[in-house]
Parts: sequence; C-alpha cells; structure tokens
Amino acid sequence: MRQTAIIGIGQTPVREHWDYPIRGLAVKALRAAMQDAGTERIEGLFVGNMLSGALAEQEHLGALVADYAGFPGIEAVKIEAACASGAAAVRQAVLAVASGHLEIAAAVGVEKLTEFSGKFSSKALATAADADYEASIGLSFAALNALMMQRYMYEYGYSKEDFSPFPMIAHHNAQFNPNAMFRYPITKAQYLKAKPIADPVNLLDSSPVSDGAAALIIVPLEKISRFAGKGVKISACEITTDSIGLDNRENPIILAAAQKSARAAYKTAGVLPKDISVFEAHDAFSIITALSLEASGFVKDGQAPRLAAEGIYNIDGRLPISTFGGLKGRGHPVGATGVYQLVEATEQVRGCAPDKLQVPDVRTAMTQNIGGSGATVVTSILEKI
Amino acid sequence: MRQTAIIGIGQTPVREHWDYPIRGLAVKALRAAMQDAGTERIEGLFVGNMLSGALAEQEHLGALVADYAGFPGIEAVKIEAACASGAAAVRQAVLAVASGHLEIAAAVGVEKLTEFSGKFSSKALATAADADYEASIGLSFAALNALMMQRYMYEYGYSKEDFSPFPMIAHHNAQFNPNAMFRYPITKAQYLKAKPIADPVNLLDSSPVSDGAAALIIVPLEKISRFAGKGVKISACEITTDSIGLDNRENPIILAAAQKSARAAYKTAGVLPKDISVFEAHDAFSIITALSLEASGFVKDGQAPRLAAEGIYNIDGRLPISTFGGLKGRGHPVGATGVYQLVEATEQVRGCAPDKLQVPDVRTAMTQNIGGSGATVVTSILEKI
Repeated sequence: MRQTAIIGIGQTPVREHWDYPIRGLAVKALRAAMQDAGTERIEGLFVGNMLSGALAEQEHLGALVADYAGFPGIEAVKIEAACASGAAAVRQAVLAVASGHLEIAAAVGVEKLTEFSGKFSSKALATAADADYEASIGLSFAALNALMMQRYMYEYGYSKEDFSPFPMIAHHNAQFNPNAMFRYPITKAQYLKAKPIADPVNLLDSSPVSDGAAALIIVPLEKISRFAGKGVKISACEITTDSIGLDNRENPIILAAAQKSARAAYKTAGVLPKDISVFEAHDAFSIITALSLEASGFVKDGQAPRLAAEGIYNIDGRLPISTFGGLKGRGHPVGATGVYQLVEATEQVRGCAPDKLQVPDVRTAMTQNIGGSGATVVTSILEKI
Repeated sequence: MRQTAIIGIGQTPVREHWDYPIRGLAVKALRAAMQDAGTERIEGLFVGNMLSGALAEQEHLGALVADYAGFPGIEAVKIEAACASGAAAVRQAVLAVASGHLEIAAAVGVEKLTEFSGKFSSKALATAADADYEASIGLSFAALNALMMQRYMYEYGYSKEDFSPFPMIAHHNAQFNPNAMFRYPITKAQYLKAKPIADPVNLLDSSPVSDGAAALIIVPLEKISRFAGKGVKISACEITTDSIGLDNRENPIILAAAQKSARAAYKTAGVLPKDISVFEAHDAFSIITALSLEASGFVKDGQAPRLAAEGIYNIDGRLPISTFGGLKGRGHPVGATGVYQLVEATEQVRGCAPDKLQVPDVRTAMTQNIGGSGATVVTSILEKI
C-alpha cells in the first residue's frame, strides 16, 4: 500500500461570496493549492460538496470544476457525505493515489450557501438527517443538536454556561485567521445572552451558513521531493459511519462512528491520543465539540466541558483545538469544511500558521470531520516528515 | 497495483417502485449481490446516486444505506457524476480495493424518480447540464440531444428513420430480460410515428424515467477463490471528463471524453476494440448510442447508423449492444444505470445471461456509462478468468 502526502494547500476566505459562482470558488482554491505544490497538472479531482444540486441546481460538479480549472479530460467526480463531504473527498483522493492509479490528485471542498435564504438552506441541510424519520417531523439540525445537548447536560450535570469555552476558543482563534468569517472574540456574557435557536442551543453555539472552498494536492509520499511544496505525511484518513437517525443509536451522546474512526486512525498512524499536538474539531455546535473530544479518546465521557474550563483546549493549552477558529469562528461551508480542517492542520505541521495561532513543535495533527449528527466521521492524522 | 474482480451481482427490476423507499431499493440489490458472492460482510460501500437530494430530500445516502443494510460502522459514501454516477461509484470501489485499504467493497447504484412528476424530474435531471449556460436558458436533456442529433444528421446525411435500429435493438433485447421496464419489441413504423419530444428526438429515442438499484461486490482478483460467486476480472474501469456545456466542445458530435476513456480502458486492459464481444452502450438517446460506438473506436465517425442497419449490433450480430435492453429498453434509473450495465456484462462473461440474450463465447465485455451529454464517461472492460 503506497503512503501518501499533502504537497499543496489552498483556500478562499470563508464569507459571503457574491462575486464567484461555485465553479469559480472551487477553482480559486484549487489553483492556490497547485501553486503551493509547484505543479501545473493534476490527474484526478475529487470534489467534496453537499448542496449544489439542491440549491444552485448544479450537480455534476466533478466535470464542471475540472473543465473550469482548465483540465477537461481528467478523472473527476463529486463525493457527498453531508457535512463530512470534504474529508470524504480527501479519502477518495488518498485511495486513488495509494492504489497507484493516480500519481497526483486534488481534493477540493466547496460550498455556496449564503445566497439562499435561511429557510432554504436549513431545509437543504436537513437532507443530511433521516428524511423519513427526522426531517419529516421538522427536526432541523439545530433541533437535533439541542436534543443531544439537553441530554448531555442532564446526564453529566452541566449548565448552559459550561459550554461557553468552546465558542470562546473558536472566536478567539478566528480573530487571527485572515480567512475566518468571524474575526472577533466573544465573552461569556455575550454567549449567555445570545439569541436562542433551539433550546439549549443558541446562536453562539451554532456555526454559520457560509461560502468557501479549500483544496489539497495529494501525491505518493516517496515522490514529494519532486515538488516545490513542503510535504506533510497523511498517516491516516479513516471514514466510518453510524445510523443517521439519533433514535437508532444505542446512546445519543456517544458518537460511535467518531470512536471507531479515531481508533482506526490511531491504529493506522501508529500513534496514541497523547501524541496529538493539535486537534481540528468539528464544532458545528458546541455539544459536538465535547462529544468529538470524548469519542476521540482525548478525555473521558462527560469531562470535556470541565477540561475546557481549565484552558486545556486554548491555543496555548495542552491540546489546542479549532486553531484557525473551527467551524464556529472560521465558518462552516459544509462540503468544504473537512478540507479546510486539513489545510489548517497542514499549516500547523509545516509550522507556517499565522502569528498567534501557530502551536509550537507540532509533529502530529489530527482533524475530525463529521456528517449529520455523527453518521459519517472522517478522522485524519498528519505528520511532519 | 492490485487487480480486482467482481464476485457478486444483484439488481432489482427496473420499473416504478412504489413499494420501496430509496434505502430499501438499494439494500435489496446489495443483499442480492452479497448472496451471489456468498459473503455476509462488506468493508466499504460506494453508492452511486444523482437525485435523491433534490427529489427525495435525502442526501447522506452512504451512511443511510450502510445502516439500513445492517452495517453501521463501515466506510460508506455517495458518488455523484450525473448519469455516470453508477460506474463512477464502481471506480471508487475499485480504487479502494486496488489500494489495499479494503478487502471487499460494494458498489450500489440507486435512483428513484417515478414518484415525482415529469416536470420535477426533468428539472432535476437538468442539474447534470451546465446550470448557468444551458439549463438556465431552458435546455433540457432531450433538447441537448436534439441539437446533437440534428447536427449529426446534417453532417452525415442521415434521415430520422436511419436511427430506428437503435431503439429497435434495445426493445428486442429487453423483451427477454425479466428485469427490463419495456418487455416488448417495437417496429420501425412505431418509431417513425412516436410522439415528438424535441425534434428530431421522439419518445422512442428517449430512455424512460425509472426506479431501480443494482450492486456489485468487488474483491482482489487473487482472492476470488474464497467466495462462492463466479469471479469476473475487472480489466479496466477508466473515468474521464469533458466540458459540460456542448457549446464549449470542439465538435459537438464527437464525444471526446468517451474517446479518451475508451482508449485508456483498452490500454489498461491490453485489448483492442476488435477483442470486445459485447458492448453495453449508454443509449439514453439514440444519438448517444451512435456517438458512443464511434468514440469507442468500434466504427468510423458517421458510420454507426449505417452498420446498425446491417444488423451488426443485433443480439446475433458481430458486436451485440445493449444486450439486456440498454437504457431504452431495460430503463434508465440514472445513478444506477452504470451498475446495471456492469451487472449485465458480468452475466454475459459468466455465460449466465437469460435465454435468447446470452452471446456465445464472451471472453471480454465492455460497458460505457455517460454523464450529462458526454461530460463524464466511465468505460469498463470485464474479462473471463
């Protein structure tokens, strides 16, 4: 089995992009990644996207982006796994290069949501849930997360304010990331007064509807010296699934797919949770950050908010999370998010993260991209070469 | 690079399936393929589907189908490449097994269209075209194919009736396929009198809106003896792309992606067009059958209708096409079609096609799955072991 590496990264800022159609946004990130890698060609393109068909009435994004990038003829396909579409596309690129079928592949995550009204985007996002058993009874994603958060608070005796560290960390870090959507810190008082969305979830628990694109160039590990970019080893990229419907899960506040995916990733990479220097968490909602930290084995079940209060997950803590602002601060352009996480983790491993965000001596960084309320999880581990 | 093989096949009949939700349809085909392979487990699931998000408001089909099949936890993802989604999903399964990451993978193509009105499904299908430059000006797929057919007739001096052999072959073969949607032959007179759709395309040039699911179980070639199913070698599964917009192509009646994909497939498999015994063509519209035969190097440009009239593509001809009825006769459940083609090609190579459809002594069968009006093309070659 060939090992693989990231040799180039690219991204657009996350914000409202009225100036670019979806293909333009994707190509901007792809071109940046190719320039970073120092390559003028790719052999395959794996596009992570969830909602272009439902919202922009454009499916067939693989061929569309390949053509607009100036590479008609190459292998190109769209990968969809709800909010985990981005990292799922990276997984396909890794498989293609690992198999020996491709020598250089790009994974591009792209999503464009802000031009559609909140009503449309909420409805479209609900297609990540179980249409017959969840969405049909009006359970939006905020509502599903509210159920999980409520149960978690009851089970472990937390109050609403115990979750404040998560969005505060995200906003703190986002202010130093030039590509983040919300470049300002928030206070605990602001968090507690934020507009309720679906009790106990409020606006500051919730990642925003965003536009953005991010890209990676992936090559065989043994060939990185042929490129100008600084290579980072992909030690693991493991995808697992769980029942989509919360009602079908043994325990709604344990992300079984995240457990399984993280364990597989540690095994493949040959590392332990304690070896991870940086963790890009999927903080779509505050509760998910807690559940993801616990499922990944960084902390015992029910302990994440307690440790967060101690500052462990701050940028200068023992395990910095969401170092570029996470989904809450950087933004959450759904199908692009998993690729953004890997771009950011690459920057951390390369040692070229922005000032005030670079964690010292990062040898191993981990990302976790979660689709739906935990039904698809992709955990990746990057290592310094 | 590990070689791969198909060890199990499964399908549902193609028709209106009011009795199954999309997950049920997919699992029916998957279970049939697993039973055929003689396996109770799979490690990965690649779901080819185009329109579940837009029509059934259900994305996230990878996790949904994996869970409903009784395999929560496995790797699962949805692949979308318009009408080529099915074979594109097979390509991903092949890459996963070839890479050594998976030892047994399933590719399932599924689509459910008939419960939606023609207006909705036509609009949804148009998301395979270029939303900004084609669909936005009202170009439906029938209209795009009409433009291509018109140009082809003008360029090579054909009349409408010269295309009659293609749907006649499809309907002839479909009558003997128990899973086909239209199990009756049609006459040239019926063809010429059929309802116009977008001149010169009429109803009998056009494949139907259908529901269906088909599945393949894919394993490493060297491990087929561990299974009960009869293995067939996947000698090639090559995907290429072209500009989606017809206006962007050098020549609108040459399928450049099909040329490139077929050449790559011949090279990978080490065969020539003359070595192919059976060709499952993507006859979404009659014109596409002609263009596909020409792009694949079976016949010179502009000659396909002429040779069709001579009977070369009939079930007892030199190169039988659409041997189970093709998209026109068997039906065209969009994201499932590419998998149906490979299931049928496997039956031909195994020598277990239905009576009156089995072509004698098939050593090598080829399928070509086309997305949009030629923007994504997957050409696969199967060989007897």
